[in-house]
Amino acid sequence: MGSFPVETFQPLDPDVFVKESQAVVDFIANYYRDIERYPVRSQVEPGYLSKRVPDQAPIFPQPVHTILDDIRDDIFPGLTHWQSPNFYAYFQANASTAGFLGEMLCSGLNIVGFNWIASPVATELESIVMDWMGKMLKLPSSFLFSGGQGGGGVLHGSTCEAVVCTLAAARDSALSKIGSDGITKLVVYASDQTHSTVQKASKLVGIPPSNFRAIPTSAASDYALTPDSVRSSMEADIAKGLVPLYLCATIGTTAIGAVDPLLDLGKVANEYGVWFHIDAAYAGSSGICPEFRHYFDGVELADSFSLNPHKWFLTNMDCCCLWVKSPSSLVDSLCSNPEYLRNKASDAKMVVDYKDWQIALSRRFRAMKLWVVIRRYGMANLMEHIRSDVAMAKHFERLVAMDRRFEVVVPRKFALVCFRLKPRFQGDDASKLNRRLLEAVNSSGQAFMTRAVVAGMFVLRFAIGATLTEMRHVEATWKLIQAKADGLLLNGSSDKSFFL
Amino acid sequence: MGSFPVETFQPLDPDVFVKESQAVVDFIANYYRDIERYPVRSQVEPGYLSKRVPDQAPIFPQPVHTILDDIRDDIFPGLTHWQSPNFYAYFQANASTAGFLGEMLCSGLNIVGFNWIASPVATELESIVMDWMGKMLKLPSSFLFSGGQGGGGVLHGSTCEAVVCTLAAARDSALSKIGSDGITKLVVYASDQTHSTVQKASKLVGIPPSNFRAIPTSAASDYALTPDSVRSSMEADIAKGLVPLYLCATIGTTAIGAVDPLLDLGKVANEYGVWFHIDAAYAGSSGICPEFRHYFDGVELADSFSLNPHKWFLTNMDCCCLWVKSPSSLVDSLCSNPEYLRNKASDAKMVVDYKDWQIALSRRFRAMKLWVVIRRYGMANLMEHIRSDVAMAKHFERLVAMDRRFEVVVPRKFALVCFRLKPRFQGDDASKLNRRLLEAVNSSGQAFMTRAVVAGMFVLRFAIGATLTEMRHVEATWKLIQAKADGLLLNGSSDKSFFL
Repeated sequence: MGSFPVETFQPLDPDVFVKESQAVVDFIANYYRDIERYPVRSQVEPGYLSKRVPDQAPIFPQPVHTILDDIRDDIFPGLTHWQSPNFYAYFQANASTAGFLGEMLCSGLNIVGFNWIASPVATELESIVMDWMGKMLKLPSSFLFSGGQGGGGVLHGSTCEAVVCTLAAARDSALSKIGSDGITKLVVYASDQTHSTVQKASKLVGIPPSNFRAIPTSAASDYALTPDSVRSSMEADIAKGLVPLYLCATIGTTAIGAVDPLLDLGKVANEYGVWFHIDAAYAGSSGICPEFRHYFDGVELADSFSLNPHKWFLTNMDCCCLWVKSPSSLVDSLCSNPEYLRNKASDAKMVVDYKDWQIALSRRFRAMKLWVVIRRYGMANLMEHIRSDVAMAKHFERLVAMDRRFEVVVPRKFALVCFRLKPRFQGDDASKLNRRLLEAVNSSGQAFMTRAVVAGMFVLRFAIGATLTEMRHVEATWKLIQAKADGLLLNGSSDKSFFL
Repeated sequence: MGSFPVETFQPLDPDVFVKESQAVVDFIANYYRDIERYPVRSQVEPGYLSKRVPDQAPIFPQPVHTILDDIRDDIFPGLTHWQSPNFYAYFQANASTAGFLGEMLCSGLNIVGFNWIASPVATELESIVMDWMGKMLKLPSSFLFSGGQGGGGVLHGSTCEAVVCTLAAARDSALSKIGSDGITKLVVYASDQTHSTVQKASKLVGIPPSNFRAIPTSAASDYALTPDSVRSSMEADIAKGLVPLYLCATIGTTAIGAVDPLLDLGKVANEYGVWFHIDAAYAGSSGICPEFRHYFDGVELADSFSLNPHKWFLTNMDCCCLWVKSPSSLVDSLCSNPEYLRNKASDAKMVVDYKDWQIALSRRFRAMKLWVVIRRYGMANLMEHIRSDVAMAKHFERLVAMDRRFEVVVPRKFALVCFRLKPRFQGDDASKLNRRLLEAVNSSGQAFMTRAVVAGMFVLRFAIGATLTEMRHVEATWKLIQAKADGLLLNGSSDKSFFL
């Protein structure tokens, strides 16, 4: 056979793996220790990085410490620090030690569990952990594998993927009845508060953009979708010869945390035979606490339900739970059976092959991460995590209410407070003032909030939930907001530092 | 203000983070040290795990060592070990220390870079690293940001996502001309060797399944798609009033590693005005070596090009590079601009907002991972990695050729060898024999291969490229295959252990 040159490049040598991994672990731990030093929202100008890094890949290897030095010097200035305790923007993306451990295990084992045989435990642990989650949320047994009614759950990377897959399933089920030409007749319903992902997904699966209905909401219903408005929208479409396909309701809308009335909407959806999806991306995690569970009433009428543990459940990016009552409709729409993946267990239909429940073939071992998070913290701590954030939000809400220059714009339900500086005179819509206040806070680097527009009103969003946020951060940020408001209200027009 | 109870649950305490992360790093390093002890393909029966783990989440936290013990005892038996040096199935999923470090940084920083302002460096590093990759592959400047012609690259999680997004862009561009009713007339072309993901994606974006053409290939063209067959398929569709939309060519097909003739196919695609995508998921990484670059000739005629560093480029799951000549067509199809994401940089169109280049809104900091891999190893080692795998495959091919019971079925181009036991008598198609051989090898636990069917022929796929594979593993596995063949050929029918 002859001898073969010894391989000198060993990119998975265990000793090197340990040494270099420890350096990175220490680096990240120091990042968490120092995180309050960095401006929360990056203050760089577009294009800053190309001036700092080479425009070509290196030919020769570079040591880890050089790479880490460059991350500190060149990458950190361009980071918006989502793990900062003073990050109140968008919705938080919870990192945690257990989530990180789970990601390490997922990445270290680095398996690709597209079907059962490709790593049986990836499928089986996912099914088990989805049932755990479902039970924690008191989902009806029709959504659980253990319910024995054909339902079950799957982990996706994002809500958009969950919506795309359920929309495709609903679409193909409808087209099997009305023929493939009917795709231009299908209509998708949501509210003007529903996440933009539903509109995007609807277009993505080939439904004409003109067939997406963003039904208006108003303060009268706390910006929730009303069953009557859905019903009349569907009736109008049917009268035009269109076919209602899919209704998305939300527990905790993105802009202001509104909750749609699931029970009443579910009845309308069931009556018209449309697929009923519930998006609880942000607020869904609260369902493990009994005091929030009432928002989920009516979930039993849904065809599918999704939430993102990567937001408020201490699970590092990315992780989206999707439960469906009829996974076979997903499989009918999404399955592929190329020869090179065939195997006895799949051919005999003895197993779940998650590739047929999602967009891609390849899939990471995300169940490991969620399983480690749940076990390492236990339901008691996870409930405490939700409750402490809500308690801080309640406190912040009280602080806002105590300052008569400000108002809380919509009732807080979870840990998102929407507020603004009140109009100062007749006809003032206060938008300009609040834009300035937002930019004054964000450009200070001391905190980062984002915005919403509700019924024409420019609103500041204060989303509490970053893992490191404590009461002292919330209180200090409120003082910062007050101080910036003082500056604006005293000599607003001379402040040139803002951008609108 | 009053005092607030001290938060006792601190899931991101830096000291705990270091301690528990080190335990997991050591655990993974030991896994790599011991990996040859485990059966490569899991030998469990469906449902094994539910007998070993509780059916409910724990209320109270569990220590890391308990979780790691359970992973070793309960999870490991259900793993198919993709990082085993004796994993020759599907295509490999390369783990590496640098890929792991990059994943740790991505997960530890845990930012969500949907638009520029959400973390400017996530966008800017991604654009820079995509240009690095493009230059390493000698892609035409029309695909690079630095090319100044509007092109550029983006990181997706999978080829399927890349294909879905480019299909949606092509579809919406076509529909803007022929009207939304025209969706049922659009036709997608690929070969019968093209990855199933293209057919799935085509259906996902709403193109009728009957409008997908899997054009037959044959041994005469080494299973490559011929320009004449594409042209006549398009002409036939046009004659029927249909509209050719999208052609996918492949560098390194999944079943056998075939390469489609890009230059000639590109000319046909351009002549008919269809979107021309090149899928180089597996073999694309080889393009950094000059000796493989000729397979890429004609890439300049493509509209988009994708490859997966998570296969053969030492980048842990998941990572798919997609370059497009006209990202604006992606953005036209996929953009969403909800109020709560608005910001000055985006409104002024000064920046790339990658959310409009992909399916989901949320996105991980994958660029960090690819950047760390390229810097830590350098182009020289990455080339060495490709070349050593190809050298091992060449050696394996020679070993097969030296045993006259076997034959290499199709010419090897990269590091995938397709071979089989020859038919033993007139009329024997050898399928049954090779199925048995495959199962004998896989159920031994000593190696894992998968299969393909090419022109009706049952073929064994031997894909070399797992990070830990060395020549000694390849040689030992060949001896194992020979020994199993000995057993089968001597007393095949008495072997009851196989499943077919």
